[in-house]
Amino acid sequence: MAVYKSIIAYDGTDYRGFQRQANRRRTVQGVLEEALSGLGWRGRSLLSAGRTDAGVHARGQVIAFELEWAHGTERLTRALNARLPADVSVMECEEAPAGFHPRFSALRRRYRYTIVAAAERDPLLERFAWRVWPGPELGTLQAMAGILLGRQDFGAFGHAPIPGGHTVRQVFRAEWQAREACLAFEIEADAFLQHMVRRLVAAMVITGQGRRSEHGFREALSQPSRVWQGPIAPGRGLCLEAVIYATGRS
Amino acid sequence: MAVYKSIIAYDGTDYRGFQRQANRRRTVQGVLEEALSGLGWRGRSLLSAGRTDAGVHARGQVIAFELEWAHGTERLTRALNARLPADVSVMECEEAPAGFHPRFSALRRRYRYTIVAAAERDPLLERFAWRVWPGPELGTLQAMAGILLGRQDFGAFGHAPIPGGHTVRQVFRAEWQAREACLAFEIEADAFLQHMVRRLVAAMVITGQGRRSEHGFREALSQPSRVWQGPIAPGRGLCLEAVIYATGRS
Repeated sequence: MAVYKSIIAYDGTDYRGFQRQANRRRTVQGVLEEALSGLGWRGRSLLSAGRTDAGVHARGQVIAFELEWAHGTERLTRALNARLPADVSVMECEEAPAGFHPRFSALRRRYRYTIVAAAERDPLLERFAWRVWPGPELGTLQAMAGILLGRQDFGAFGHAPIPGGHTVRQVFRAEWQAREACLAFEIEADAFLQHMVRRLVAAMVITGQGRRSEHGFREALSQPSRVWQGPIAPGRGLCLEAVIYATGRS
Repeated sequence: MAVYKSIIAYDGTDYRGFQRQANRRRTVQGVLEEALSGLGWRGRSLLSAGRTDAGVHARGQVIAFELEWAHGTERLTRALNARLPADVSVMECEEAPAGFHPRFSALRRRYRYTIVAAAERDPLLERFAWRVWPGPELGTLQAMAGILLGRQDFGAFGHAPIPGGHTVRQVFRAEWQAREACLAFEIEADAFLQHMVRRLVAAMVITGQGRRSEHGFREALSQPSRVWQGPIAPGRGLCLEAVIYATGRS
């Protein structure tokens, strides 16, 4: 029985999030475990790098599972994809070293949040983006992203995943880029607080629209015990792009 | 009663194409006419620039309709969007000159076809792209696109919309571009034959994969009375980008 590590992509639109739920709602973990069961997997629960919320997408989610499989990793990928619905897929599988845990072994995670600035609905973009209007000023967005870099306490913008856990995180990269009709925010950190990316994005967007001051954002960051009062960007714009391990990028 | 021209965008995934059908299947025209009826429209049929096939998307479809409306075009856009499902939207409305017909007044149409070269399924891209593997050679694709330019008989690659109609079309632009993980083909012509873009794309892709010769493609173009024997690219990768009129671009 070997341990396998797989990179998973999904369109989260029709899922209640990644984590399996007792109430039988459709979850990404649920359909992955069903596909694994079809290959003889009898585990209690697969391991994952993180739990994405309802509606959030992934291009680089990482899971691990033990399986008796004699046909190589390419055929494992194909056999799983044959059993998965069209909105979830396995990008690749590899054998993992003993003791590999997709969450605890991860060094960094990278997320991308996409917004589209448009007055009217855009059915070709809104599945994977948050539509905002008026459009935020790109210069303001970039300046605010710069403030996020480094090691600091993000307590104002999210909860620790474990009650009472610390809220200090190190951000290695945070930048906005214009991409055709969209603005995309990429952020890479050692780990993230719950809802942290979606709260930061909402704060940057409403500031970039002139509805809040940049000063207020700086103040919120300097007072981590006071929860920032503001909107949270919807899940549909968020995508888990990659989870990064010591041995390379996945 | 004024004539209005509207630019329409839609995600065609869940539609049986643009044109209303007698059998009550879901069509883009059907949901648009339902929304218009909610505003008091009593016409028999709205006019459109063209009928897109099942699964084909649009960012720049153009429709026209007569309506009694006293509240201006911005509020007309908003009122229609409030009555439309999330996968269809009105981008803008304007009053059209007398005699405007979205099909007969059009000078040019522009389509984009997107492919993604990947061995495994990609749920974040395949809603709007055709996945092919192995990836076609970009240089070959570009060389073949170049052959399409100018005025020629495309009879080998599609039927005239009217039985017995001529099959000569003028192509003003035809080019492939690499866009992140995708390859996108943009083509602008005075008009198109049925399935023409999807047949041309399939021919270029399988040639770019080395499964057919470029010479065979040139020959097919020079023998318009012989229908090209080959696959047709799926509707999901195709998008009607724009319809262009004498007074400007829509």
